[in-house]
Amino acid sequence: MKDKLKVIAFDADDTLWVNEPYFRENELLFADLLADYMPKDEILKTLFATEMKNLQLYGYGVKGFMLSMIEAANLITNGQASAALINNIIALGQAQLQKPVELLDGVEEVLQRLQGKFQLVVATKGDLLDQQRKVKISGLEAYFQHVEIMSDKKAADYSHLLKKLNCNPDNFLMLGNSMKSDVLPVLELQGYASHIPYHTTWLHEVHEEEPQHPNYIKLTTIKEILGHLD
Amino acid sequence: MKDKLKVIAFDADDTLWVNEPYFRENELLFADLLADYMPKDEILKTLFATEMKNLQLYGYGVKGFMLSMIEAANLITNGQASAALINNIIALGQAQLQKPVELLDGVEEVLQRLQGKFQLVVATKGDLLDQQRKVKISGLEAYFQHVEIMSDKKAADYSHLLKKLNCNPDNFLMLGNSMKSDVLPVLELQGYASHIPYHTTWLHEVHEEEPQHPNYIKLTTIKEILGHLD
Repeated sequence: MKDKLKVIAFDADDTLWVNEPYFRENELLFADLLADYMPKDEILKTLFATEMKNLQLYGYGVKGFMLSMIEAANLITNGQASAALINNIIALGQAQLQKPVELLDGVEEVLQRLQGKFQLVVATKGDLLDQQRKVKISGLEAYFQHVEIMSDKKAADYSHLLKKLNCNPDNFLMLGNSMKSDVLPVLELQGYASHIPYHTTWLHEVHEEEPQHPNYIKLTTIKEILGHLD
Repeated sequence: MKDKLKVIAFDADDTLWVNEPYFRENELLFADLLADYMPKDEILKTLFATEMKNLQLYGYGVKGFMLSMIEAANLITNGQASAALINNIIALGQAQLQKPVELLDGVEEVLQRLQGKFQLVVATKGDLLDQQRKVKISGLEAYFQHVEIMSDKKAADYSHLLKKLNCNPDNFLMLGNSMKSDVLPVLELQGYASHIPYHTTWLHEVHEEEPQHPNYIKLTTIKEILGHLD
C-alpha cells in the first residue's frame, strides 16, 4: 500500500478530537431535565427516534440535535414542556457549540510524521460552521491541504471527494472511528481504510462486524498507522 | 475582462433560485402565531435581534433560523410559549427545508450559453445538507464543475475558494444578489463582480451604496451578463 499512497484522509470527530462524549453528556442532561415525565432509558429512546426521523432533513451536527431535543421534549412531556425547559435545552446545545477542542492521544505526532510525505486531508460530517470552527481552534489546520465537510459519508460521497482531490481509490487511505462511515464505503471503492476504535460510538454509527477486505488495516491506536507507512 | 476570465461563480439563493421570500413568509407566519403577545413589527425586530445574536454560533441557514425563532418565541411570550406553539414553529422550518426549488428567470439560458466556455461554480452560504439538496433537485447540477458551500462570504473566504480552484482574482467573476456578500469582498480581492438585484433582501445583507470599482459590472437581470461575455 505505502508505495501507492498519495492522500491520507482523517475523520475529525472522535478520530482527531473528542466529540461523541459531548453528545452523550448532553443527552444525559436532557434526560435529567425530563426525569419527571419518563424513565431515562425511554427518554433516550424517544430522542434517538426523533433524531432518526429528522436525519434526512437536518443532516448531522449539533443544530439538528438541538432541534430534535426540543421536538422530543414536547413529545415526552405530552405538550407540557415549559419555556424554561426549552431554554435549558437551547443552552445545552449552545454550550456544546462552544466547547474547546480536545485533541486525542497521538494525533499531533502522527500528523507531524506524515506531513510532507502525503497529502493530508480532513473528511468529516457535521455542521459546516461548527466543523470549521473546530478545525481552526484545534491548532491542526496547517497540517491539512484540504478540509472536506460532508453531508454524508456513503461510497458516492467518497467518490465525489476523490474526484475533487484528483486521486484514485488505490492512492487513498481513510482513517476514522466509524466502521460504517469511515471504513466500509472506502473499501467498497477499493480504497484503503483503517478503523481506529474510540470508546464512545453513537448508536447510529455502530457496526459490529470486522470487514473482510485486503485493503482493511486494523489498528488499536492512531499511532499504529505509522508502522504501516514507514 | 472576458479574455482573462476562467471561472464564473454564481451565488445560489435568490440568484439561481427563490429563497429569501420563503424566510419572509415564515417570519410573517411566526408573527401571526405570536400576534397575541406583541405588535408584529416588534416581533420581527425581536426575531432579527435573536438571529444576529446567534449568527456567529449557528451560521447561515434554515436550522439556525428555526432555533432563533424558538428562542425568540420564549422571549416574546415572556416564557408563556406553549408546546403547541413551539411545534408549529418547528413545522414551519421543516416545511421550508422541503420546499421545491423554483429557478429564477433567465438562469438556465445563461448557464447553457456559458457552459463549456468557462468553468462554472456555485458559491453559496447556508446549511450544508439543505444547499446540496437544492443543487440536486434544481436540475442545474450538471452545469457546475464545483459547488462550494461556505460558512461566510468575506474576502478571506473567497481567497480560500480561489486557492482551491487554482484561479487568480482577475480570472474570476462572481454573480449574486447580495452587494455585501457577493460583490464587495470579490472587488476587494480585485476580482470581477456583478450585482443582480432581487426584489427581496434580508436586512442583514442590505447594502445601499453602489461600488466605485473598475471591476464592478452593474446588471439589472442575469441575462445581461451575456452581453459582457460574448
